[in-house]
Amino acid sequence: MVRVGITMGDPAGVGPELIVRALHSDGGEGVTVYGDPFVLRAAALRLGLPKPEACAAAVVEITRLAGERPGVPSNAGAAAQVAYLEAAIAAIARRELDALCTAPIHKAQARRAGFAFPGHTEFLAERIGGGRDVAMMLTGPHLRVVPVTTHIGLSQVAKVLSPDRIARVCSLTIAGLHHDFGIERPRLAVAGLNPHAGEQGQFGDEETRLIAPAIAAVRKNPLLQRIAFEIAGPQVPDVVFRTAAAPPIGDGRYDAVVAMYHDQALIPLKLIDFDQAVNVTLGLPLPRTSPDHGVAYDLAGTGRARDTSFRAALALARRLTEMRRR
Amino acid sequence: MVRVGITMGDPAGVGPELIVRALHSDGGEGVTVYGDPFVLRAAALRLGLPKPEACAAAVVEITRLAGERPGVPSNAGAAAQVAYLEAAIAAIARRELDALCTAPIHKAQARRAGFAFPGHTEFLAERIGGGRDVAMMLTGPHLRVVPVTTHIGLSQVAKVLSPDRIARVCSLTIAGLHHDFGIERPRLAVAGLNPHAGEQGQFGDEETRLIAPAIAAVRKNPLLQRIAFEIAGPQVPDVVFRTAAAPPIGDGRYDAVVAMYHDQALIPLKLIDFDQAVNVTLGLPLPRTSPDHGVAYDLAGTGRARDTSFRAALALARRLTEMRRR
Repeated sequence: MVRVGITMGDPAGVGPELIVRALHSDGGEGVTVYGDPFVLRAAALRLGLPKPEACAAAVVEITRLAGERPGVPSNAGAAAQVAYLEAAIAAIARRELDALCTAPIHKAQARRAGFAFPGHTEFLAERIGGGRDVAMMLTGPHLRVVPVTTHIGLSQVAKVLSPDRIARVCSLTIAGLHHDFGIERPRLAVAGLNPHAGEQGQFGDEETRLIAPAIAAVRKNPLLQRIAFEIAGPQVPDVVFRTAAAPPIGDGRYDAVVAMYHDQALIPLKLIDFDQAVNVTLGLPLPRTSPDHGVAYDLAGTGRARDTSFRAALALARRLTEMRRR
Repeated sequence: MVRVGITMGDPAGVGPELIVRALHSDGGEGVTVYGDPFVLRAAALRLGLPKPEACAAAVVEITRLAGERPGVPSNAGAAAQVAYLEAAIAAIARRELDALCTAPIHKAQARRAGFAFPGHTEFLAERIGGGRDVAMMLTGPHLRVVPVTTHIGLSQVAKVLSPDRIARVCSLTIAGLHHDFGIERPRLAVAGLNPHAGEQGQFGDEETRLIAPAIAAVRKNPLLQRIAFEIAGPQVPDVVFRTAAAPPIGDGRYDAVVAMYHDQALIPLKLIDFDQAVNVTLGLPLPRTSPDHGVAYDLAGTGRARDTSFRAALALARRLTEMRRR
């Protein structure tokens, strides 16, 4: 059995209803939800589904919020979403969990409640990763992408990239594909930064100055020497995602693409794997997944939020744990 | 009848064989090829197809190259590709052509032969557009995209963007959708530059500083006042292409997306419309199309080059002319 912890996220977001729906279809075996039983019950009632207690999952009461309304963030909810995460972290420290699946928090709300991190990924890197290197992979039915830089302005990307950071993300990805996804010989493509990958330096030199040295360093990384991996690049950005994407859309030539910036990774992923992509944190001591969307206040309580990504996130948390055990 | 001029492009590239194949399937009604009859005949012979003279197309002998080999560029070929373009320009000046479809040139080779432009688009803007504003649209079965900036390094994009340039590209796109593509009420989306379109200025301010003012200017553009258009943006880059793409991949909500940089436009387009996209120059006095690929020396002469994009480019040149006539 895999012991998966689910954090409920923002009580005013779509998290509670997605959790209720996911547990209903999944059965909840081995799942512990860190959240608010009242909010979850209200969500189940609205959806016409059984209470979460009716399935095999345990719900740990971290808050007991009254008067919360879907789509309407509150100060109590802002603090609650952080408290759910802290409770799960404590359970991980007590070795009660094998994997973590996090429902969306609202970042600005969380910051108001004293959460001092850009998002889940950085928080978990610090609190359970011991400050280790982590990277964010988005994985969908057709494509896996890992951006080297994430939430920064486009004009900052070239300034922030370094051979060291690119190499570390590539190495985390190769190790993750092998150990977590069970791919014997991972095949990784690394995208260039510029149009046509710079076309021999005509439109930028980051490919030769930063990316090629990073790839050379990954090839020599002693931590990867037991993995028979392939790494190719810098590849032409407007070609590599199609080359990598699974048929029938693409050629299925690579298991993942390391991208230089947020939208280079997310535009192709969301175009072909929208609603089905899962966010995976690479480099943590345990598998952590989350859906590829935010709190969606506009959909909360309407029952119209699609649950494909959250269900996939829960299923993947289990599968990654099983792969690691092998 | 639509009189389409085809320029043969680089004799050592895939152009000659794609032209022979396109004419064979198309019939060549109204087509004039500016090129080299010997090179075209050799290509037909290799492919086991009838000589181009066997169809309705006329071939104007601009060069008579001997000893050219597919995949092996030559000095004579470098000059020839420019001569074909000059011949077509002269025919346009004599009002002998309604539309132009250009086979790929090799840009570095062309420059060696004295071609002083980054590519076809800029050359045609100068020589038949009278220096007018033009923009490059890529149109495929699922998506139309128009990048505001093209062949520059990613780190230069934010520096080059201006409200004026963005507004001009948007206006050209709206006018092109209406007049060339026959869309009564064009619906245009304008992508943001930064992740999440800047998320209220957290990751860059170009959305509020440059893009929103451009959109406001387009709404007031007197040249567009007779067109009942819709313009939306700045939109979240990792969402807008899916919103715009035709079903079943996307929602089909927009007729085109104006993108801020080359790969923002080309990554989604090539992912879903690879091999089928056509390059259209907006803003010229006559329709001009070209395939969405280069000379592909590695494929020239092998018969393995896919002709879908070139055939689509020829068909679109005809269709855009017919639309303008209405």
